[in-house]
Amino acid sequence: MRVDVALIQDLVPSPLPAGTHAVVLDVVRATTTTVAALHAGCDGVQPVGDEGRARELAVERGALLAGERGGLPPAGFDLGNSPAGFRREDCAGRPVVLTTTNGTRAVERCAGAAGIWAAGFVNAEASARALVAAGAERVLLVCAGSGGEVAADDVALAGCLAGSLALMAGALPDDGARTAAALFDAWKHDLHGLLVRSLSGRKLAAVGLEADLLDCARVDALPRAVRLDGAGVFRLAGDGAPA
Amino acid sequence: MRVDVALIQDLVPSPLPAGTHAVVLDVVRATTTTVAALHAGCDGVQPVGDEGRARELAVERGALLAGERGGLPPAGFDLGNSPAGFRREDCAGRPVVLTTTNGTRAVERCAGAAGIWAAGFVNAEASARALVAAGAERVLLVCAGSGGEVAADDVALAGCLAGSLALMAGALPDDGARTAAALFDAWKHDLHGLLVRSLSGRKLAAVGLEADLLDCARVDALPRAVRLDGAGVFRLAGDGAPA
Repeated sequence: MRVDVALIQDLVPSPLPAGTHAVVLDVVRATTTTVAALHAGCDGVQPVGDEGRARELAVERGALLAGERGGLPPAGFDLGNSPAGFRREDCAGRPVVLTTTNGTRAVERCAGAAGIWAAGFVNAEASARALVAAGAERVLLVCAGSGGEVAADDVALAGCLAGSLALMAGALPDDGARTAAALFDAWKHDLHGLLVRSLSGRKLAAVGLEADLLDCARVDALPRAVRLDGAGVFRLAGDGAPA
Repeated sequence: MRVDVALIQDLVPSPLPAGTHAVVLDVVRATTTTVAALHAGCDGVQPVGDEGRARELAVERGALLAGERGGLPPAGFDLGNSPAGFRREDCAGRPVVLTTTNGTRAVERCAGAAGIWAAGFVNAEASARALVAAGAERVLLVCAGSGGEVAADDVALAGCLAGSLALMAGALPDDGARTAAALFDAWKHDLHGLLVRSLSGRKLAAVGLEADLLDCARVDALPRAVRLDGAGVFRLAGDGAPA
């Protein structure tokens, strides 16, 4: 297996090399929230970049409308972009349309990939296992970033995944993966501390949502991988205990 | 002081924020070689992206023509891009025109900066000291990268410089600087080992020039900072022992 890291989504090559499995990483918060919503029993999470289009789709499909602009849910949304906002009692069985600033754009940038996955620290090991089980020979870890800047939360997760894939599949690190691995290694015993200090974390604290960072730092708490299906909807995939 | 890191030159903002001092980092090898040539007594090093223009300028100015394409000196060049190629007995007092693949392009990308500096591990501390002495309030560390890919050698030097500037001037790290600092910290006791494993290092080994990596990893061996003058020529600057 070959593993490359795009330290920010702007560095994703276009077109992607043939056969690439792209893993979108937006730890704070879009991909963590996607994983959390699916583990709470939602019937798929559809990432949509444009807010107006997200509103239309939610009506068409009877879906929960979730997401953020500037960190907060726009008027009329059912839910924001907080992982803990998706409670089983409220949303089991409901489809979700999710629109966010960085993560959904990163998903759009990976169009044409052999597989598109969403990962957080919450399902890191499950994601690595599922990539191996899917026979992925070429993996691109895509750090969403924050407003065009490198985001340490995403880079650290890329390092975590690159390390797991090296152990599981003998993946050799490129220079980006080596850089990411060093960041993860430096902070792996205090990922919450890294998130608090990160650009994404500071933006979240500025709108009063720093409690979300605890949920984003819970390594392997939600043990299923998440993959985009043919209809552009993220669904649980791969091995692991049923959600 | 505020310090930002562009983990690869493609991430340099255009235009640069007003007052930015840009420090170009191409450890393997253009900026290391620039520093080495000046410490060997060359009368300025002019970075030129275009090979044909470099040939013309060298004739016009009676300069040594140095550089590489694919790691090796093109036909008719006086010197390659090896730091050790610049020997005092051959080049003291001679102007140099240097054309390389990544580093000279990174310099061109920093046009409009309040100051443009060239740094390697060889003059890391001197560079940090000179930035403080120059009163730089905003510093952008520009990792040249290698053929459009992130280069670990450059990122590690960015981490080294960010750490020095934090100590000297209380610079707070952005997420890119924190990432770079983790890579430097992981490898600071074996920088040569990092260079050997890096993309740049492997490319160099493929053309038989791996011995250059030892010269690129000699931290603070050449104790003067290097800055571009108004005529687009790199010259020794700042504090330190005379070369």
